[in-house]
Amino acid sequence: MSKALVTGAAGFVGSNLVDRLLSLGHEVVGYDNLSTGQQEFLAAAKSHANFKFHLGDVLDLPALTEAMEGCGTVFHLAANADVRFGLEHPRKDLEQNTIATWNVLEAMRAKGVQRLGFASTGSVYGEAAVIPTPEDCPFPVQTSLYGASKLAGEALIQAYCEGYGIRACIFRFVSILGERYTHGHVFDFCRQLGEHPEVLHVLGDGTQRKSYLYVGDCVEAILTAMERLEGKIAVYNLGADEYCQVRDSIGYITEYLGLRPRIEYAGGDRGWIGDNPFIYLDTQRIRALGWSNRLTIRESVRKTVAYLSENPWVLTRR
Amino acid sequence: MSKALVTGAAGFVGSNLVDRLLSLGHEVVGYDNLSTGQQEFLAAAKSHANFKFHLGDVLDLPALTEAMEGCGTVFHLAANADVRFGLEHPRKDLEQNTIATWNVLEAMRAKGVQRLGFASTGSVYGEAAVIPTPEDCPFPVQTSLYGASKLAGEALIQAYCEGYGIRACIFRFVSILGERYTHGHVFDFCRQLGEHPEVLHVLGDGTQRKSYLYVGDCVEAILTAMERLEGKIAVYNLGADEYCQVRDSIGYITEYLGLRPRIEYAGGDRGWIGDNPFIYLDTQRIRALGWSNRLTIRESVRKTVAYLSENPWVLTRR
Repeated sequence: MSKALVTGAAGFVGSNLVDRLLSLGHEVVGYDNLSTGQQEFLAAAKSHANFKFHLGDVLDLPALTEAMEGCGTVFHLAANADVRFGLEHPRKDLEQNTIATWNVLEAMRAKGVQRLGFASTGSVYGEAAVIPTPEDCPFPVQTSLYGASKLAGEALIQAYCEGYGIRACIFRFVSILGERYTHGHVFDFCRQLGEHPEVLHVLGDGTQRKSYLYVGDCVEAILTAMERLEGKIAVYNLGADEYCQVRDSIGYITEYLGLRPRIEYAGGDRGWIGDNPFIYLDTQRIRALGWSNRLTIRESVRKTVAYLSENPWVLTRR
Repeated sequence: MSKALVTGAAGFVGSNLVDRLLSLGHEVVGYDNLSTGQQEFLAAAKSHANFKFHLGDVLDLPALTEAMEGCGTVFHLAANADVRFGLEHPRKDLEQNTIATWNVLEAMRAKGVQRLGFASTGSVYGEAAVIPTPEDCPFPVQTSLYGASKLAGEALIQAYCEGYGIRACIFRFVSILGERYTHGHVFDFCRQLGEHPEVLHVLGDGTQRKSYLYVGDCVEAILTAMERLEGKIAVYNLGADEYCQVRDSIGYITEYLGLRPRIEYAGGDRGWIGDNPFIYLDTQRIRALGWSNRLTIRESVRKTVAYLSENPWVLTRR
């Protein structure tokens, strides 16, 4: 792989991808506005001769374009990844997920960058009619601004691939877990239990079923698919080959921490408007390339709790 | 129906919808920036006491919001409907189809407008895997900026319906024909034959198969579906129950005009990058509401040619 630019380089998945690319000997340009990304996540990368950091916003098209100089591949991971609070600021998803992706495409076109990896989401399936959900499931109806804004990003990428000769892999993630994890239910639960170990407040009734994936497995899947990219567009679901209930996940967390909190459920079959009570993706397509997840969901949750326990600053930083 | 606002009111489909709403006794606010819309198309409406025209841009959110005062329904038809030249100005589709739709939704939210009809397109199916293509066909890959930007609009609407209690019908049109038709292949062919009746230049090889719909049938389908809207979201394909080849369409046009031009095909199986060589939508869902197209494709083409012949100013106006 030639020189690669990673947007959202200081984020959870982004910084893990940066480290892995550097370990494989690639030159990497990290691009991040540090709005939610953490400088600390790039501490190791910054000591590496093959790494260069650009402090910049994906909405700043001239800066983004300049940063892509000499790159052959872009991994576009910068996003508003806050699924739950979309309805409180509906412009945020439009700008940071849709218009930002258009900017990435325009910058690539200006600089002749031809390969793109894009972090999309299983949320584009809305409440899927088929579970486990394959990439070519029935045309879905969107239920969240996050999913809608990511689907818009996917669509723009596909049109640019058809029209301008860009080639892209689109990755529809389940929730990712592991080192440098900075938001989501495990984060919320660990923060709560740090503040009051005797009680845990849970959205919904705890029966919501979700799949997860360890960040190391996610990064390997991305690199596997990008190496094999042959056509204009490839779309891959990324997830573990299992799902669990929120109740199970709570069990993994409290077991690891040696706590027995009282659990108070808010009730209802979902955590918030637009939440999906059952997410489980069919990942046969990426597995056909030889990839498989090495960690189970239980192991991924435990890794995450271990990381947050060892790095308590993460819990208070956002 | 309470008072309705129509964006793109001075456009082809918009002005036909305005006239029909007025004939049914509704109050109508027409909103258009006249960038491609034609004042002449609203001549009859403007003499009607129930009609009010707002000259404004859908990208001007304050003006759009103000215009929605007192409306119960919005028909969002304003768009960059220029499918073919998307690659020459990729920002245009993003702004006029995606960001503009977000503006419509924000204006509706600000004014408490609860019902929306949206003109989307069969182009969101890309090169469909299933033909005739039903609304719940396999999750498509986009092939044009037009389709991508309209899909983004659909997705935003769906998320707003889930999150903010708006209810919407999304209409995926085939190409529409009829009175006030201002762009597309019949327009191009009529203009060419007006300038040089002896020769007709055709993109592709003439075997492209497409479906069409008469604008009067389109307007009736929209009104039928809006009356029956019960849930949060309904998605309907709108098209005739047949398709034809470009060659057939040329035959209908030249037959009507009494011309026998030499036909020069540019060659290739499609007219331009992102063109779809076969568009034919499954319209069982809208037909189940009792609607059916009254005009055949041949009759629709003839109506269009008749209109352009009687209104030659349309051919030179854009």
